[in-house]
Amino acid sequence: GQRKMSETEKPKGHTLPKDEGLTNGGNNVSSNVSDELTEVGCIVYYKICKIFHRLYLLYNHWFMQMLVYVFIIINLALALFEDPAVVPLPIWATSTIEIICLSAFTVRMVHYAKVIPRDKFWKDPKNICIIVIVTLSFIDLTIYGALKATGYFAIRWSRVLRPLLLVNVTEGRQLRRAFRSIRNALPQISYVFFLFMFSVLVFSLMALKLFGKRGLLTIDGSPYFTNYLDIVFDLYVLVTTANSPDVMMPAYNYSVFFTVFFILYIVINTYTFMSFFLAVVYNNYKKYLKEEVRQLVKARRFKMCRAFSLLQETRGEGGEPVVTQAKWNHLVKLVKPNISIAHRELLWSVLDDQNKGHIGKIAFVQLADLLSIQVITVKSQPHPIQICFPSVYNSSVSRFIRYMVRTRVFVYVYDLIILVNAVFIGLDEENPVVSNAEWGFLALYMLEIILKLYATEPRAFFARHHFWNWFDTIIIVSALFGTIINSALKHSGGYTSRQILDIVFILRVVRLIRLVDSIKRFRAIINTLIKIGPTILTFGQLIVVYYIFAMVGMELFKGKVQFFEPNSTSPDQEYCGNPLLKGTTFAKLNYCKNNFNNVVSSFIVLLELTVVNQWHDILHKYRSKLIKGLLLFYFPGSRTVDGLLQRMFETDLRHEDFNEEEEPENINFSNPVFDSV
Amino acid sequence: GQRKMSETEKPKGHTLPKDEGLTNGGNNVSSNVSDELTEVGCIVYYKICKIFHRLYLLYNHWFMQMLVYVFIIINLALALFEDPAVVPLPIWATSTIEIICLSAFTVRMVHYAKVIPRDKFWKDPKNICIIVIVTLSFIDLTIYGALKATGYFAIRWSRVLRPLLLVNVTEGRQLRRAFRSIRNALPQISYVFFLFMFSVLVFSLMALKLFGKRGLLTIDGSPYFTNYLDIVFDLYVLVTTANSPDVMMPAYNYSVFFTVFFILYIVINTYTFMSFFLAVVYNNYKKYLKEEVRQLVKARRFKMCRAFSLLQETRGEGGEPVVTQAKWNHLVKLVKPNISIAHRELLWSVLDDQNKGHIGKIAFVQLADLLSIQVITVKSQPHPIQICFPSVYNSSVSRFIRYMVRTRVFVYVYDLIILVNAVFIGLDEENPVVSNAEWGFLALYMLEIILKLYATEPRAFFARHHFWNWFDTIIIVSALFGTIINSALKHSGGYTSRQILDIVFILRVVRLIRLVDSIKRFRAIINTLIKIGPTILTFGQLIVVYYIFAMVGMELFKGKVQFFEPNSTSPDQEYCGNPLLKGTTFAKLNYCKNNFNNVVSSFIVLLELTVVNQWHDILHKYRSKLIKGLLLFYFPGSRTVDGLLQRMFETDLRHEDFNEEEEPENINFSNPVFDSV
Repeated sequence: GQRKMSETEKPKGHTLPKDEGLTNGGNNVSSNVSDELTEVGCIVYYKICKIFHRLYLLYNHWFMQMLVYVFIIINLALALFEDPAVVPLPIWATSTIEIICLSAFTVRMVHYAKVIPRDKFWKDPKNICIIVIVTLSFIDLTIYGALKATGYFAIRWSRVLRPLLLVNVTEGRQLRRAFRSIRNALPQISYVFFLFMFSVLVFSLMALKLFGKRGLLTIDGSPYFTNYLDIVFDLYVLVTTANSPDVMMPAYNYSVFFTVFFILYIVINTYTFMSFFLAVVYNNYKKYLKEEVRQLVKARRFKMCRAFSLLQETRGEGGEPVVTQAKWNHLVKLVKPNISIAHRELLWSVLDDQNKGHIGKIAFVQLADLLSIQVITVKSQPHPIQICFPSVYNSSVSRFIRYMVRTRVFVYVYDLIILVNAVFIGLDEENPVVSNAEWGFLALYMLEIILKLYATEPRAFFARHHFWNWFDTIIIVSALFGTIINSALKHSGGYTSRQILDIVFILRVVRLIRLVDSIKRFRAIINTLIKIGPTILTFGQLIVVYYIFAMVGMELFKGKVQFFEPNSTSPDQEYCGNPLLKGTTFAKLNYCKNNFNNVVSSFIVLLELTVVNQWHDILHKYRSKLIKGLLLFYFPGSRTVDGLLQRMFETDLRHEDFNEEEEPENINFSNPVFDSV
Repeated sequence: GQRKMSETEKPKGHTLPKDEGLTNGGNNVSSNVSDELTEVGCIVYYKICKIFHRLYLLYNHWFMQMLVYVFIIINLALALFEDPAVVPLPIWATSTIEIICLSAFTVRMVHYAKVIPRDKFWKDPKNICIIVIVTLSFIDLTIYGALKATGYFAIRWSRVLRPLLLVNVTEGRQLRRAFRSIRNALPQISYVFFLFMFSVLVFSLMALKLFGKRGLLTIDGSPYFTNYLDIVFDLYVLVTTANSPDVMMPAYNYSVFFTVFFILYIVINTYTFMSFFLAVVYNNYKKYLKEEVRQLVKARRFKMCRAFSLLQETRGEGGEPVVTQAKWNHLVKLVKPNISIAHRELLWSVLDDQNKGHIGKIAFVQLADLLSIQVITVKSQPHPIQICFPSVYNSSVSRFIRYMVRTRVFVYVYDLIILVNAVFIGLDEENPVVSNAEWGFLALYMLEIILKLYATEPRAFFARHHFWNWFDTIIIVSALFGTIINSALKHSGGYTSRQILDIVFILRVVRLIRLVDSIKRFRAIINTLIKIGPTILTFGQLIVVYYIFAMVGMELFKGKVQFFEPNSTSPDQEYCGNPLLKGTTFAKLNYCKNNFNNVVSSFIVLLELTVVNQWHDILHKYRSKLIKGLLLFYFPGSRTVDGLLQRMFETDLRHEDFNEEEEPENINFSNPVFDSV
């Protein structure tokens, strides 16, 4: 079978530039096609080029991909050690690390250039972007080093570009998709935003006319609503409800009728416009995301159809074209070398449900989807104790224990224990009864784990998908070690490490989460949250925005606000070391630590701004993501976000995309090689 | 045709109690069936009972329905005049008004009992509710009057029940549907809420363990995070982000690592759980609303099918049953006596598009939907000036003027005028140049309206659907009158009425909204908002919740906090007349007017609570309504919310509900009379 196959598939023309099917890197939609697909494409068109194939597999190896992330994280983490630093390191040290990182990116880029046709490589804005960033970083590093060496003032401006690397590596697919969807939705959003701004301006004008001449005073004695631009700012803040009701009180104290103005303002701008805004953002974002996924699925199906037409054989006269099991096996082996034979057989039996020995086009096209399904292998093995001591394990006492552990009563007893434990945790731990009780609770929890391990086969107990078993064991064992170390320290010299105690406390409290697991409904909610976790984490990559702002903020504001330790005697402490802050609410509320003096502080300030001032657009963006995440959850069975998105929209596409002749809409997919086949 | 028809339709049994098709009042789903349907039902089953029919039509007359609302509003507005009052009225006056209102409700109830079978009436919780409320109000009124007359302390507790009348009148259909959907969604929501509370409690316990022993101090010197219940409250407030970052600062100042705790808390509780909560509320609310609408549409179709089977004739042998135009005309005349002949002919021609003179079942069933479509009659009439002075109107100068008015240039010129006007409004109006310019602007705006009226036929110009023409004319004419009155007052005695000036200012600023109309995209957004307005207003009826809280709040807190005029010299002014408030932030920020001393203040306080503390659940409830409103908007063509909802889900039902034999799922619809037909 194999010999015949390689003959059938041998491409007619070997010229490299003609073949563009290998990777779809580069243009908007094409870059989204998943790895499985590109791999299939590779096999189809590049069968002959063995070295090439190996280079390609190496490029897509999980270790290489992980390495890229490690270097990106190291590169981003440099901000911790560079001036203004959390942990200062000399310039030569940070520069050396940065050079290593940049070199790693260069090597990766060269590797990528080797596995993709040259013109394709240079057409891809992603690659250009990385090359420009790396080059600029080198230039900046040189200039900075030279200036510093000669004692001049210098700014490391290329640090702003660092997070863009995360966006532009091949693996930043989801993030790019998110950014692209936001960018596409912008025009629609901007109209609502302009109308909203118009509304704020008109209301401000009305406020100026109504309140400006009345001689009202604010709570700190300054004139109320007399300057147009101040009014615009105040009313803009009111949209975020941050200064309500303070901004209203002078007018309200003057006359109750003026509250109508503010109520109308809040109803129109905060509720109506912001909701409208949210609705427009959500709808547009969804629309563009759907369109992207549609294109992606279409392209994938199109490629699979092409692959099918290369592998197909016609059975008898007028029979439908089919792919035999032998060919299919060979293909799967090439695409996923690590897949087990049982797994492959299972996949085949799913496709060839009538056991014909060959499959048609529709079944073949499902290959990429099938390969992304996670298969959990449940092996029914006897318990190790049963093997070693069968008579003990099968005795009536042992049976009774195993039966009891599996009943609901066992669960209820331990729920009760956890509740009692919760009360003990709340009590003062310096009381000897409480601290001794802790040993009892630990023993009980250890006993629970041992009993469960006795009743269940250990390998099944610690199976990968048994999240709660892992959680319990790790928490309890860590708590046991922590408590022993803490106790040993205490007894040895009366000294108690605050850090270890903190960890012990956290582990104790975290234990209570177990309660959730025993209530079915709660477990369902938690499982939902865990499942949509990856989707939310994808958008957690939006941290790049924070990073950029933090970099800019540090260059602009470093050292402007200083924090003094509480026991400091410096007179500057009152106003955070900046005379301009004398007597301000900022200094009064002791906000001095909210500064841009290092990257950690900057991140905290930015997070506070997101939370406190309720920048509703940012907030809503996350919210609508979460709703989408929830929606995604309802299409179970797939593991990757790609797969989830595809499942979401694939019903729309089921009946239209099996036509092999139909070219995908996006011209980036039209591979010229098809004409020569 | 008419004679034959009445013979055909004469019901077999005349017994009233058997017939339950007249009104669907009462049980959950049945009460939602719209009036058109009940009217059709009435005609079908009650043809004979002319008096009954008249009583029924009177009950559903718009004037009677309006009267009910007027009495409800008067009854609710009594809170303004009762102690604690905004405008105090003697007890005998308010009591008399209340007795009149309650009597009106009683009369309405008796009227309703006349038009609906007795057992049906008593089965309806809505009716029982109204009777109980009215009875309790009478009892409370008597007790209160007696106690007050003898000088005892008394509480008007029945005032809390007043808004429930609004919910329970037949017309409160949408509101009941909203409440019912919320109630049905509660179990699902409560699980997420409990899990959220569990999370807050666990985090609080962790905070107690981590920070309690460290001896940290808050900004006002009190111990930080030492009491468990205080921590729970602080962290609960943190979910609403109201006390961030203050609650975090002591821990942050101690060590930067503790921010991890707060960031984790905000990410889990504020973002994840609140979003999850919103998603669950939204999904469940939508699910139940959809189910209700499905039931409603199904019931409507079922009734229409029944009506069809009573009116149908069979054409020829084996032909499909049809309804003739004559019968249909008679039916429409009975259902909608005020419909014009042209309108009726139009509807018929829509149904009978092949001009056969009769319609089949599917066309007939659309009747109720068709009747709810608003038909705009556009009469092409000659301009009055053209009739009186044809030579002048048709002259080349006149034609040029009319042409110019219709061009875009005319619109642009007036947009420019409005922009210039905006600048002038922003300037100080005491400057004589500015105040004189106002006359010029008014003249220009008047000229615009006159020119438009010259170019367009006045009746077409002031057609009901031309919102902006009405808006312009009313604003400009009012501004003209206001400015003239203001000027006259000023010139007569140098006295300027502040109220009139305020109105003039508001009208001037409102004029600027015109700018929006000339930009196409903005107009689309505004039109969307206007169209979804009714849907949002329906949920504005949730004001009943505020009313109940205001009533309770007034009884509990009236007089506790007092407001003193700014020029008052009372020493109590410092602490709002309540020694307990001495030195609190509340008094310092001059919040004294935020009290429960009368119904208006109470409402403002409740609104502030909704806005300031950002009670996210309330807020989100409105938000998701708005999104739903937006969705509804995309199904244009219907006018009522009922119609909109039906259109939304009717695609789901299109193929399943024309089966006459199929009984609707809800047994409330199974009318026993069908068995005897």
